[in-house]
Amino acid sequence: MQNNKALPFKQELKKDKYKMDSKIDVVGIGNAIVDVLSQTEDSFLEQEQLTKNTMMLIDTEQAQELYSKMGPGVEVSGGSVANTIAALASLGGKTGFIGKVSHDQLGDVFSHDMRAMGVKFSTPALQDGPSTARCLIFVTPDAQRTMCTFLGASVWIASTDIDAELIESAKIIYLEGYLFDRDRAKKAFELAAEIAHKANSKVALTLSDVFCVERHREEFLHMIKNHVDILFANEEEIKALYETNDFDDAVYQVQENCSLAALTRGEKGSVIVTKDKKINIPATIISNVVDTTGAGDLYAAGFLYGYSQGKDLEICGEIASIAASEVLTHMGARPQVNLAKLLEQKLSATA
Amino acid sequence: MQNNKALPFKQELKKDKYKMDSKIDVVGIGNAIVDVLSQTEDSFLEQEQLTKNTMMLIDTEQAQELYSKMGPGVEVSGGSVANTIAALASLGGKTGFIGKVSHDQLGDVFSHDMRAMGVKFSTPALQDGPSTARCLIFVTPDAQRTMCTFLGASVWIASTDIDAELIESAKIIYLEGYLFDRDRAKKAFELAAEIAHKANSKVALTLSDVFCVERHREEFLHMIKNHVDILFANEEEIKALYETNDFDDAVYQVQENCSLAALTRGEKGSVIVTKDKKINIPATIISNVVDTTGAGDLYAAGFLYGYSQGKDLEICGEIASIAASEVLTHMGARPQVNLAKLLEQKLSATA
Repeated sequence: MQNNKALPFKQELKKDKYKMDSKIDVVGIGNAIVDVLSQTEDSFLEQEQLTKNTMMLIDTEQAQELYSKMGPGVEVSGGSVANTIAALASLGGKTGFIGKVSHDQLGDVFSHDMRAMGVKFSTPALQDGPSTARCLIFVTPDAQRTMCTFLGASVWIASTDIDAELIESAKIIYLEGYLFDRDRAKKAFELAAEIAHKANSKVALTLSDVFCVERHREEFLHMIKNHVDILFANEEEIKALYETNDFDDAVYQVQENCSLAALTRGEKGSVIVTKDKKINIPATIISNVVDTTGAGDLYAAGFLYGYSQGKDLEICGEIASIAASEVLTHMGARPQVNLAKLLEQKLSATA
Repeated sequence: MQNNKALPFKQELKKDKYKMDSKIDVVGIGNAIVDVLSQTEDSFLEQEQLTKNTMMLIDTEQAQELYSKMGPGVEVSGGSVANTIAALASLGGKTGFIGKVSHDQLGDVFSHDMRAMGVKFSTPALQDGPSTARCLIFVTPDAQRTMCTFLGASVWIASTDIDAELIESAKIIYLEGYLFDRDRAKKAFELAAEIAHKANSKVALTLSDVFCVERHREEFLHMIKNHVDILFANEEEIKALYETNDFDDAVYQVQENCSLAALTRGEKGSVIVTKDKKINIPATIISNVVDTTGAGDLYAAGFLYGYSQGKDLEICGEIASIAASEVLTHMGARPQVNLAKLLEQKLSATA
């Protein structure tokens, strides 16, 4: 039974036993962003020609113009992979993050929020150049979020920011698809994946966004086939990747390409896909959905937490679903309660 | 019935009819602060020797030290009177604000949030000097908030910032007790009260905080007797003002000193006090209290909105209670829904 395709999950984990005892569970590499969230009517999205539930990149001038039209906001640290890493820390995981802020107040806010969660974060702040990245998030009455990101300092991440020692000490590194949007960042990203593989760390990737997939389909497919051990995507993203309208078809194709994928489907829950298995995980039902920002990020946190602790895939999915449900109840993508405690409560309630 | 003491409320309002048609309902003068809120255990307050449910002033170094120990935060524009003015705007009132931010990112956030509510706000930002004021707010599991304020640029407000035209156009000006903490600010404050009285605007004042009352008792008493038309205080503050442990005694004394006071008592609701009347207003009961930050500020908003629209005092109290209840359901002191719509729903539900 040493054939890779048929290798049962638990045995596969045992193979990496020495990594499971290392110091850091997950190191994330992603955009370092402060979110500005505001509740908005659907008519505003139409007026500004924004596509609901997607992420659009904007430049300094667009950011200023759009911000001036935006309602009053709430500022919360964000960034997709950064959200995952913060939530992983809240679950009790040992984590690190590599990402670029500027030397300004919002950069201080982002750095504080990571370190206050216990995340190892020491990427030097950009001294000159653009300000810390901001994401203007418009939350409509249906709790969906539509995002416009000014990437600022975030894409100034360079290969010199890749802390090899930190990456080598990680069981898993988790990479943000959005970083494919800038060449300098993409190079840093590739270097990190290379170091991780040499150190026998697992490489996880999130596709991030439908438009992001459209922009970088070929590169994503190449990377998934050759470097990715765990893939995260939502239904729309995975369908966009394989240019199909049929979710089952996308699942079939991902089974060909990747050893493990976790695919989220909103209220329909999620599907965990291995070479030879599909596990359906129901969504954790909550009544007071306020804002879906970060639901996918927290799903990944729960999954990677379970995975790094050597849990069965079904349990990984269950933890993912619980973590995702917490962030739906309030504005912003960072957990507002201790997720480890929440998990304990939820799991004991269903035991 | 032209005797001032016995003048019924509605007639008194009619006397000021010409003010009721003027452009601006309420102009607030107060600290321009961005709040940083974080959920905290009670043990942290003990460890840092913070007195629950009060506001403490801190300097730059204390702010840095305390922030480094604080958990991950959510940033929301704050400032007591600024919160009231923002909520008044959300209720549909026409409002203005005078307060001092610095020329930095948090100053931009504060200014944006005021203007995005439709508040007239054009106090020039401080170009050199300390950064925009921040209030570190520790929210304990009982939803109480304990505040540590770094006043920064906020106390650099000076008499030259007092926009006489704006104040003259207001039915009511609303002053923040906290501003008594700095001499330059206090002078600006006194100038504003003087302009308001000459223009026949009403002057409202909030006592802000128990410690603030202890620091400035004599000045507050003098001001209330001579200049204040509407006084806002919570139970602890009004008892501290009159150095009594008996709320009824404090009510008796405020009747002697001030023509109209609205005194909040948390879950016990509030009492509206005139020379010859006491009206009890029950608290609006909600089940999911998350954070009490801003409850008093939103109470004042509801009350002043009703008052500026010429409503009966009982209705003013009812609007106040509804507005206060909204802000209890989430982190931060700014409303997250349109208060005018909320009010309509709540009033039609009880009709």
